Amino acid sequence: MDDLGPRHSGSVFVGLVGTSQVLGLVSVVLTGVWMGHYRGGFAWDGSAQEFNLHPLCMVLGLIFLQGDAILVYRVFRNEAKRNVKLLHGIIHLLALIISIVGIVAVFDFHRAAKIPDMYSLHSWCGMATLVLFCVQWVIGLLFFLVPGMSSWLRSMYLPVHVFCGLTLLVMAIGTSLLGITEKLLFSITSAYSQFAPEGVLANVLGILLVFYGGVLGYLITREEYRRPPNPEEESLSVHFKTLTEGGSPGSP
Amino acid sequence: MDDLGPRHSGSVFVGLVGTSQVLGLVSVVLTGVWMGHYRGGFAWDGSAQEFNLHPLCMVLGLIFLQGDAILVYRVFRNEAKRNVKLLHGIIHLLALIISIVGIVAVFDFHRAAKIPDMYSLHSWCGMATLVLFCVQWVIGLLFFLVPGMSSWLRSMYLPVHVFCGLTLLVMAIGTSLLGITEKLLFSITSAYSQFAPEGVLANVLGILLVFYGGVLGYLITREEYRRPPNPEEESLSVHFKTLTEGGSPGSP
Repeated sequence: MDDLGPRHSGSVFVGLVGTSQVLGLVSVVLTGVWMGHYRGGFAWDGSAQEFNLHPLCMVLGLIFLQGDAILVYRVFRNEAKRNVKLLHGIIHLLALIISIVGIVAVFDFHRAAKIPDMYSLHSWCGMATLVLFCVQWVIGLLFFLVPGMSSWLRSMYLPVHVFCGLTLLVMAIGTSLLGITEKLLFSITSAYSQFAPEGVLANVLGILLVFYGGVLGYLITREEYRRPPNPEEESLSVHFKTLTEGGSPGSP
Repeated sequence: MDDLGPRHSGSVFVGLVGTSQVLGLVSVVLTGVWMGHYRGGFAWDGSAQEFNLHPLCMVLGLIFLQGDAILVYRVFRNEAKRNVKLLHGIIHLLALIISIVGIVAVFDFHRAAKIPDMYSLHSWCGMATLVLFCVQWVIGLLFFLVPGMSSWLRSMYLPVHVFCGLTLLVMAIGTSLLGITEKLLFSITSAYSQFAPEGVLANVLGILLVFYGGVLGYLITREEYRRPPNPEEESLSVHFKTLTEGGSPGSP
């Protein structure tokens, strides 16, 4: 799209970012409507209403906020790198806290209802995603926000960090679709195959999450939307590098 | 990893390709064992045994073969481009034929057992993946194998084709995990939560498919594993371009 000129590329970018935000927000709202209207609302007492916090927290934290935390590198690609890094880390931390509330909610509900934990594919994928998300956050903090890390190591780790971040977002979306399927088969087994409104709403939610992941993935992987090289930051980074050790400067 | 030298990069590449093939083949075998040993084997008579062909065909066609069709561009990155393109198209065609057999099997079974079609999130995601797979195959054929397409259009479409290909593989894997969850909840509802061997086997299959997608995604997106520029092909492509219209040469 570079060939069609920067103005065209810019308007496509704005359109795609806007679309991603609409998809993300509508997904969070639909999850709230599903749990609030069809499943009896929310509580924190070990009941099914406590379980209802689980899908809402996971879609809000591990999908919408995780996606937006990644997206800040594209939306603010002309802002100071240090500020964008901080924003990226803070949104991820918020996503992590909300996700942990969501996880605690489902374990609490299982304990009260005497339902075994960690037997389903949804739980295996979900736990793997959350644990790897924590690992990625801590390693990212050590490499890119704590001063003194070798520039060579940073530039080596950067592409792995970016790849793992996008993979974790995809895993979170896939795990949510598994959760939607599980919940529908447990709650409305026979009505689901009769196209009950609750089932259709939950299916639409799943499709919106897939679109959210698709648009995010496109925005993050397109070369033209990457942060442009900044000569001032480069020279600062090179200057800092001479104080540590050899290699090429790098940070996300 | 470029900084660690081409020999190190090459051995990592070989290791990752080998791992992907082991993961893909073990996934196909596990699907066969699940359907063959736990679900009563295979038939073509509208029975549950006909349904059993559905998971096997989809994992073989839309995951293992689709993944390998994409991978040929990395494994044979030093071979003649035209041959690699042909191989890419042929493996995709084989994947498509096997997938269509798998889809027919499940619709046949549904008709015989009077089970409604297309109500679940698995079916919505699966049908979207298969239809988009066909569209991608036809457009890919028109752009990259039929002679006479403008080089400018090819180079414009190439990154979209690559992105959509990887997205379709991810969608196929996500859809398979949904199918695994559905099948387990329909077949072994209460035993699943007691960690019945069938459930554990199917969960392990799901995790292997996620790893297959992860390794494939890494191999395809790493800059260092891309096809290196070939001056001879470039000059031929530029020469051909002057016979058509302006723009930069491009093909996958």
